[in-house]
Amino acid sequence: MNIGLIGLGKMGYNLALNMIDHGHHVTAFDANQETVEKSKKNGIQGVASLEELVQQLSTPRIIWLMVPAGKITDLVIHELQPLLSKGDMVIDGGNSNYKDSLKHYDNFAKSGIHFFDVGTSGGTSGSREGACFMIGGDASAFHHIEPIFKDIAVENGYLYTGKAGSGHFLKMIHNGIEYGMMAAMGEGFDLLEKSPFDYDYEKVARVWNNGSVIRSWLMELMEDAFSKDPHLDEIRGVMNSSGEGKWTVETALELETAAPIIALSLMMRYRSQENDTFTGKVVAALRNEFGGHATVKN
Amino acid sequence: MNIGLIGLGKMGYNLALNMIDHGHHVTAFDANQETVEKSKKNGIQGVASLEELVQQLSTPRIIWLMVPAGKITDLVIHELQPLLSKGDMVIDGGNSNYKDSLKHYDNFAKSGIHFFDVGTSGGTSGSREGACFMIGGDASAFHHIEPIFKDIAVENGYLYTGKAGSGHFLKMIHNGIEYGMMAAMGEGFDLLEKSPFDYDYEKVARVWNNGSVIRSWLMELMEDAFSKDPHLDEIRGVMNSSGEGKWTVETALELETAAPIIALSLMMRYRSQENDTFTGKVVAALRNEFGGHATVKN
Repeated sequence: MNIGLIGLGKMGYNLALNMIDHGHHVTAFDANQETVEKSKKNGIQGVASLEELVQQLSTPRIIWLMVPAGKITDLVIHELQPLLSKGDMVIDGGNSNYKDSLKHYDNFAKSGIHFFDVGTSGGTSGSREGACFMIGGDASAFHHIEPIFKDIAVENGYLYTGKAGSGHFLKMIHNGIEYGMMAAMGEGFDLLEKSPFDYDYEKVARVWNNGSVIRSWLMELMEDAFSKDPHLDEIRGVMNSSGEGKWTVETALELETAAPIIALSLMMRYRSQENDTFTGKVVAALRNEFGGHATVKN
Repeated sequence: MNIGLIGLGKMGYNLALNMIDHGHHVTAFDANQETVEKSKKNGIQGVASLEELVQQLSTPRIIWLMVPAGKITDLVIHELQPLLSKGDMVIDGGNSNYKDSLKHYDNFAKSGIHFFDVGTSGGTSGSREGACFMIGGDASAFHHIEPIFKDIAVENGYLYTGKAGSGHFLKMIHNGIEYGMMAAMGEGFDLLEKSPFDYDYEKVARVWNNGSVIRSWLMELMEDAFSKDPHLDEIRGVMNSSGEGKWTVETALELETAAPIIALSLMMRYRSQENDTFTGKVVAALRNEFGGHATVKN
């Protein structure tokens, strides 16, 4: 099939190669024209503008967005929409908030354009070799784009999840679960590190990946990480986040339901971003005030 | 090799069959003589007492305990120890607290008997087909028993973890991580259940198991569970626990280190065991006292 791809970052570029491997034709645009030029060597048909991208595709067009979520996705969609025609299909494969995707869906629907919110998981290796896709949008139009997913997903690695928003919502929850799983693993290795025993963490992760209850891709990634840096001495324990964990907790608040593990995993990420805390100062000051307990001076 | 097995419960019985598959000879005792009789049909040499078990084995004996942790393990070891000779090897494959194992190690060491604390993971299917073993104890004697692990573990599924206690300590941490992973998964599906979308959870678990970052054996088990009971209507959300999560949190307290995700996962299990809470009554009463907010009457 002919696919118009917007965004040749790590994920988009690997997806493009994956599509080409499966016999699809990829016309691609990226804001960085150098990136476009480089990609041409690999069978990607690079173009210099969104207009050119749209012109190169016959209707109904299939356009795949793989750009950073939020403002940039909004901007690209704002520019793209007037160039498209009724019946065209737009896939947002980025990590967009499902509420943004609902807005995009409604706007596109006014012009008779099908918008699909597609959560993509599996990292850059997944994009290249076979990823996992959660796809929300019009059921009636899904069959047009399904062959692409069949090709570029791993086996059983794509799911039409229902009405608009459901794909990105599911990806958000996936990431929320990921936060909790990663926090639990982090704490487990932290306890091993402080224990009276002397473990080889690469070997621990390996044995846990072979037959244990907690075997998982994340534990395989830890095996890999410990093989390169046995005590992770080279990095600091600063846990950044890019939004999906926060949205999961916001969703729990909106639904007024308890998701304490995921919420605390997020809060502990925030904690890790501070060298010291005002919370700590307040508590230390109070202990000093009522009990004369020593404080640690700056 | 000739192995003396004590305990023919689900785990022990399956381990025995696994050992026999690999050409080992298993002499087994269980407190329940009926269980012993039944097991004889499957090539297990059943005996009627610990004395008989010990007599049947030539020195140095290899004796594998697979009985409930705590009192029962203590009792069996208490009875067993006087029957053994210097150079014998005792393997505790149960879920014992590593502190108990340290005591057992010290006691056995006084008689020149090698005690190994072995954490076993992988459930009953693992015991039968290939499990994951974490083995603490004397490095100098480990080579005597290693061939058994090579046979009954999955590939790369056993690890000599170091000095006495390190095997059961590692298994304890494994289970602590498991608590957090399971809690995060639970909350994720809970949010899906309350979301405005209509997901098929079996399909969700399946797509997450194919190419996503959170793919794992636990998620595979959820695929299986949802295939049998799509909304888990048949069960209540009561989360019991058998000790290892609690020990992990006790260990964090002893080490005075933060493991909030694992700790909260344990606390949420306790919460799930109560239909109502006194905490809730206190907070409701206070809201009523200071603000006249309505309470829910019994």
